[in-house]
Amino acid sequence: MNMYDLIVKKKRGGELSRDEIEWMIRSYTDGDIPDYQMSAMMMAICFVGMTDEETKDLTLAMAHSGDMLDLSAIHGIKVDKHSTGGVGDKTSLVLAPLVASLGVPVAKMSGRGLGHTGGTIDKLESFRGFTTSLTEKQFIRNVNEIHIAIAGQTANLAPADKKLYALRDVTGTVDQMSLIASSIMSKKLASGADGIVLDVKTGDGAFMKSLDDARALAKEMVSIGKLAGKDVSAVISDMDQPLGYAVGNALEVKEAIDTLRGQGPEDLKELVLTLGSLMVVKAGAAEDTEQAGKMLEDSLNSGKAFDVFKAFIQAQGGDPEQADHPDLLTSAGYQAEVPAPTSGYVCNIHTEEIGRICLLLGGGREKKDSCIDLSVGLVLHKKKGNSVQAGEALATIHANDMQKLKEAERRLQAAFELAGEKPAPEPLIKDIIF
Amino acid sequence: MNMYDLIVKKKRGGELSRDEIEWMIRSYTDGDIPDYQMSAMMMAICFVGMTDEETKDLTLAMAHSGDMLDLSAIHGIKVDKHSTGGVGDKTSLVLAPLVASLGVPVAKMSGRGLGHTGGTIDKLESFRGFTTSLTEKQFIRNVNEIHIAIAGQTANLAPADKKLYALRDVTGTVDQMSLIASSIMSKKLASGADGIVLDVKTGDGAFMKSLDDARALAKEMVSIGKLAGKDVSAVISDMDQPLGYAVGNALEVKEAIDTLRGQGPEDLKELVLTLGSLMVVKAGAAEDTEQAGKMLEDSLNSGKAFDVFKAFIQAQGGDPEQADHPDLLTSAGYQAEVPAPTSGYVCNIHTEEIGRICLLLGGGREKKDSCIDLSVGLVLHKKKGNSVQAGEALATIHANDMQKLKEAERRLQAAFELAGEKPAPEPLIKDIIF
Repeated sequence: MNMYDLIVKKKRGGELSRDEIEWMIRSYTDGDIPDYQMSAMMMAICFVGMTDEETKDLTLAMAHSGDMLDLSAIHGIKVDKHSTGGVGDKTSLVLAPLVASLGVPVAKMSGRGLGHTGGTIDKLESFRGFTTSLTEKQFIRNVNEIHIAIAGQTANLAPADKKLYALRDVTGTVDQMSLIASSIMSKKLASGADGIVLDVKTGDGAFMKSLDDARALAKEMVSIGKLAGKDVSAVISDMDQPLGYAVGNALEVKEAIDTLRGQGPEDLKELVLTLGSLMVVKAGAAEDTEQAGKMLEDSLNSGKAFDVFKAFIQAQGGDPEQADHPDLLTSAGYQAEVPAPTSGYVCNIHTEEIGRICLLLGGGREKKDSCIDLSVGLVLHKKKGNSVQAGEALATIHANDMQKLKEAERRLQAAFELAGEKPAPEPLIKDIIF
Repeated sequence: MNMYDLIVKKKRGGELSRDEIEWMIRSYTDGDIPDYQMSAMMMAICFVGMTDEETKDLTLAMAHSGDMLDLSAIHGIKVDKHSTGGVGDKTSLVLAPLVASLGVPVAKMSGRGLGHTGGTIDKLESFRGFTTSLTEKQFIRNVNEIHIAIAGQTANLAPADKKLYALRDVTGTVDQMSLIASSIMSKKLASGADGIVLDVKTGDGAFMKSLDDARALAKEMVSIGKLAGKDVSAVISDMDQPLGYAVGNALEVKEAIDTLRGQGPEDLKELVLTLGSLMVVKAGAAEDTEQAGKMLEDSLNSGKAFDVFKAFIQAQGGDPEQADHPDLLTSAGYQAEVPAPTSGYVCNIHTEEIGRICLLLGGGREKKDSCIDLSVGLVLHKKKGNSVQAGEALATIHANDMQKLKEAERRLQAAFELAGEKPAPEPLIKDIIF
């Protein structure tokens, strides 16, 4: 077998066999296939596409390129969740302890990631002393005892995907549905969960700008998961405005705490309950999603979910006092309100730009080794459909640098579109793919 | 400017500007753009294509990536010739001295090349002592004195093309019309000729298997040449059987000598006169191709062309005695005739396979540093349309290795297709693109 022949086969519209895909991924991971041949293959795939069978084979080959986590020492059915990423997406912070509060084991690998805010791990590090560097033994013990543990991704989880994604990132070959789906799913399959619930975001603040693309990606991922023998569903949710009100690491943690105390924003709560009830059913802890939803809501209202959250923070070295008193979490030096220039209804929020403003303030990573300022970000006061008076605050910026604050003010004002008429409301949950 | 943006632009069907193409080629030649980005770009071009303008800009950028030869010290209008390559293609060996015999300056850069036989330089090295390592001064003096010199390609002629071709060769991105055309034309433009006559081969033994593809390539190259301000024409000629009868380095030299003495095969003579008359007209040495053709034929018949050939061999260190007595040229140890298995008419010759048999015998290079055996090859006795009796010789193999000879016999017999009816004759010259 040689890579040249495989490139030409794919270029001419052919279908790669499982043997060919496995050989290609193994040889690439081992450094036997050079980057310049693999990038030509990736570009050919962008034009020709891949069949469901090829996509599944690619996903499994990448999943098996490194360690396959063995969670069999954890009691019960393990269900993982993955979001394709959006602005203000603090879902995992609420969802993980909430599902765990029903006794469902939540054994989560999380990343830091690039983007407008940090990943789940960065956000959790807002708590003094909190760590995700757990030994395998600690990790398993925590899940068995308090039903929840979140660890940083080990270096050797789907290394083929890591290498391939880095190459695609610099060769203009990221935006191909099968490649996106296999990249996400290879890591999830290597993470060892029995069931997976996917949150596929769509809209201006998401990677998938159109609902059609989001639905195609969701179907592709669910199909791969099923072909790989896993119980997978995907929720397609709105990202045409930030989720909740807070954007920024510690600011999002505060909003997550509010939500765990039953006082969070409606959209965040709705999404958490939708995703959570699917997870609870997959784990066998409820008959159907309706029953599961009620159980989850009870747990939020009774304070049970919040208690699990605090136990979890404590079990991983964090200070639960900061959860009871979120004012003790890190906060930024300057705050400034951004006034509405005219009166009207908020009809549009440039969500991707909101994310970029948070990045500008220092709340995200531009490069892998960038430092994150956990305290900065912004809190919206108005969302789509809300009415606003000229001069009334649209949002509050939290910054540590006056110059960046000024630029953020200017850009944030421009990110809101106001109109004379109230826009028709958009549903948060667009579709669920089983 | 950055390569990522250019890849994405091309991938989405965009047209690259001259600035972008010049920057890309300069940066790639300098090593500032990695191979893995360039191979992704090449693959995108295979799917999206390039406009005439882009192709011209790419060609010029590659031509200017190294030395641009300055032939202004040579008197008269310099006309170069290029063949896309075929089996038994000894055209240059006859054409160059023939055109020079009319006083037209022939200042030729030739390569060695990969393939079933060596390049023009390898073939000429069949003459004892012959060299193409000329100083610039010698080269120019020879052309001014005897109207002909052939030098080996300097290392720094269109280095961008050299680097890019090597990359395309291993990434399945060779067969794109604009890329093929720009690769050929960049070297020709850098070689400094005022006019160029292209011999685009079509058929089983050519790179362009179909007449449509050959015509498209010819048009593309003529168009590039014109946009670059050069006088370019292209002849599309048949390569559905070897040109002439001899295939192999010294064997082809012998056939070229026969032709220069007015006793060569008809097809070779016809092609030489067609290409030559175009060159002579471009050089301003004749009114039209009809007049030029007559002048060239006279030169062949009078022995003038052969005299120039001998003077040329001598001027570059070779032994002209070997031209008068071709039996003194190197010859192989074994010869074997390949008999026809049945009687009939030759209706097809698998020409690419004929080339591969010559390569098997050692007459060509599989890798850049392979050694060539100048003595081996084969001489056909029958061509398409000829009748043959069972047991009569189809060809004679010249070999230095008995085992290779046996395999060549078996394969050569299978390369001839015989039929009961005489096939309709095919014209040698398919088209001329001005």
